[in-house]
Amino acid sequence: MTPDNHPVAADRLTLADPDTPFAVVDVRRTRRNIGRLAARADRLGVALRPHVKTAKSLDVAALLHEGAKPCPVTVSTLAEAEAFAEGGYNDITYAVGIDPHKLPRVLALSRRGVTLRVLLDSTEQAEFVADASRRAAIPVPAQIEIDCDGHRGGLRPDAPELPGIGRVLHEAGCLDGVLTHAGESYFAPTAEDQRLAALNERDSAVAAAGRLRSAGLPVATVSVGSTPTAHAAEDLTGVTELRAGNYVFFDLVMAGLGVCDLDDLALSVVVTVIGHRPEYGWIVTDGGWMAMSRDRGTAAQAQDQGYGLVADLSGALLPGLVMTAASQEHGTLTAREGVPLPDLPIGTRLRILPNHACATAAQHRGYHVVDGSRPTGEAPAVAGFWNRVSGW
Amino acid sequence: MTPDNHPVAADRLTLADPDTPFAVVDVRRTRRNIGRLAARADRLGVALRPHVKTAKSLDVAALLHEGAKPCPVTVSTLAEAEAFAEGGYNDITYAVGIDPHKLPRVLALSRRGVTLRVLLDSTEQAEFVADASRRAAIPVPAQIEIDCDGHRGGLRPDAPELPGIGRVLHEAGCLDGVLTHAGESYFAPTAEDQRLAALNERDSAVAAAGRLRSAGLPVATVSVGSTPTAHAAEDLTGVTELRAGNYVFFDLVMAGLGVCDLDDLALSVVVTVIGHRPEYGWIVTDGGWMAMSRDRGTAAQAQDQGYGLVADLSGALLPGLVMTAASQEHGTLTAREGVPLPDLPIGTRLRILPNHACATAAQHRGYHVVDGSRPTGEAPAVAGFWNRVSGW
Repeated sequence: MTPDNHPVAADRLTLADPDTPFAVVDVRRTRRNIGRLAARADRLGVALRPHVKTAKSLDVAALLHEGAKPCPVTVSTLAEAEAFAEGGYNDITYAVGIDPHKLPRVLALSRRGVTLRVLLDSTEQAEFVADASRRAAIPVPAQIEIDCDGHRGGLRPDAPELPGIGRVLHEAGCLDGVLTHAGESYFAPTAEDQRLAALNERDSAVAAAGRLRSAGLPVATVSVGSTPTAHAAEDLTGVTELRAGNYVFFDLVMAGLGVCDLDDLALSVVVTVIGHRPEYGWIVTDGGWMAMSRDRGTAAQAQDQGYGLVADLSGALLPGLVMTAASQEHGTLTAREGVPLPDLPIGTRLRILPNHACATAAQHRGYHVVDGSRPTGEAPAVAGFWNRVSGW
Repeated sequence: MTPDNHPVAADRLTLADPDTPFAVVDVRRTRRNIGRLAARADRLGVALRPHVKTAKSLDVAALLHEGAKPCPVTVSTLAEAEAFAEGGYNDITYAVGIDPHKLPRVLALSRRGVTLRVLLDSTEQAEFVADASRRAAIPVPAQIEIDCDGHRGGLRPDAPELPGIGRVLHEAGCLDGVLTHAGESYFAPTAEDQRLAALNERDSAVAAAGRLRSAGLPVATVSVGSTPTAHAAEDLTGVTELRAGNYVFFDLVMAGLGVCDLDDLALSVVVTVIGHRPEYGWIVTDGGWMAMSRDRGTAAQAQDQGYGLVADLSGALLPGLVMTAASQEHGTLTAREGVPLPDLPIGTRLRILPNHACATAAQHRGYHVVDGSRPTGEAPAVAGFWNRVSGW
């Protein structure tokens, strides 16, 4: 997968060259996806704080601000925070509930001048953060996680302990605001459901901020977002920032929700046909779950897309062909009912569009980059290789 | 996750020190698992060719031959083949159907004196391998993949094209033998089913070898194996070598099949409690699918183990506690019906035993190593950090 494996000169490389499987980013689609949400945020009058957990790439993140100075970002690990701080990003929200053991790394970033916001939803964590901030004489900005839809962590907006937690943080100079994530919107099947999820997300965050303010506590940040709700919100009054991550690449789950079209999907995995089992109706490839991940997000949707849809090397979909099974380094493609299995000889390269871009991208060390401008049928030129941040 | 993140001196490090999540290998259990299959292979009178795709680690592989010279191995990627060749392993089978585009890397290893066997199941591939071998004047040893149970690739033992493929290979000096893998044995629920799967696996490989020999073709290698069948086989007459990979670590899928006990599981992931949702009966951790993978292998078994079972830091299971949900960096633990949710404060470290060791291990850059000898309740000492091979 590394760019070193291919004997072709770097400036003549196409998707026909690197050994498969490998991940590809279509930079034209990525730019379009980024532009779409940026325009929405502008219209809605909120700042955008993209979540970089999907691409985990400084190169992809650079497309978020094209030439301008680094934008605010959200991260899912301290390894991302450290890599992005190194890359010049100095306004970072670490949107996973803080583990007290990780505070030394948070403080180390703060000492370097990075504004690194942490998240918490308990008095215990607030006391840890307040104590660590006092001992270090560096107030760590903290947001209180609000649960808007019973998805995972957070306090309900009406939780009795909310003002008390706010006070513990405020007294140490740490209270920054509230944050919520409408995780259940990934299961909101219609545009109307997504619109309601966005409304509920906003109302939950604004209500929690209101309770803190009523208790005399200052709330600077009211942060909401998920890819579906960020694209469905119509009015974000009271919200100061919008977060979303998946939208830079999108994926089959998002297409299944109608948040994007199939031709917005910017991440794919190039695989090679290595066998045929006509007696079972199978085409076997060298891209298994190691290349795609085990994610089966569309299994819960109206149209199950297996482990992914299949396109040719230029990116044109092969209608009715689906990756329906995966072992570690083998993928099985089958045709949907009534669709004839295409003739794809040994050695044919294909691009698999994933269920879940975050999970599929995580299986790779980086991305071969194409600009998506070649005509159908030709192997797109590779414009570069972009590394990912990995680990924690 | 990297060993650089912790301020504790390396020789005093315990599982309480590195930031979570991180993967742990219990070397005592690994050694015991390795010893068990080695003794079986001895009794059965076959050579063992362990599959290194599970651990992908030269350090783990070193336990396979403890001080003796490198043993024959099976790999799932050329990146593994190259890393193991670099580590002194010179008898390697690449057990994924060969993509003609990858032959230059195969030949490069052959030129370095590594016996690298490739796998194929079509005349087309046989011709590619034969042609490439002739052009390079290096016969690439090839095995014909036999399908014993309709799992994925391979030719049925009675496939009409089998002798023809054998002949194409033989005429170029490439025919090495046959290989089969009872992939369906992962779904064979009882010991008797597994015994029958092993019998069928052996019979399929031996029948295919017999057909080639009847056609006047030499068959040196008759290779069979999967972790369940390797542990169930009673008579491997006609077989020359046994392959298995998962068994070095085992996992919940293997425990669910009865191939191992829960206290044989040598791989776990250390996570930290970062929140509580008593209203839902949830304990939230910082170990999501990024740390565990999306693999839900036990969902197809009689006892669904969610994303994993939960142990304390010393490795003692917390009965009835299961990781039942995962997002990217969040795990949700719930108690089984009738079991009270244990009191695990923020900051508590736990070890999650995975469904599928191959998939979980692949989410990590390497392993913190413990020897499993500390008493229950104490944080085991870390004896080292072992890197994994990644990519393709």
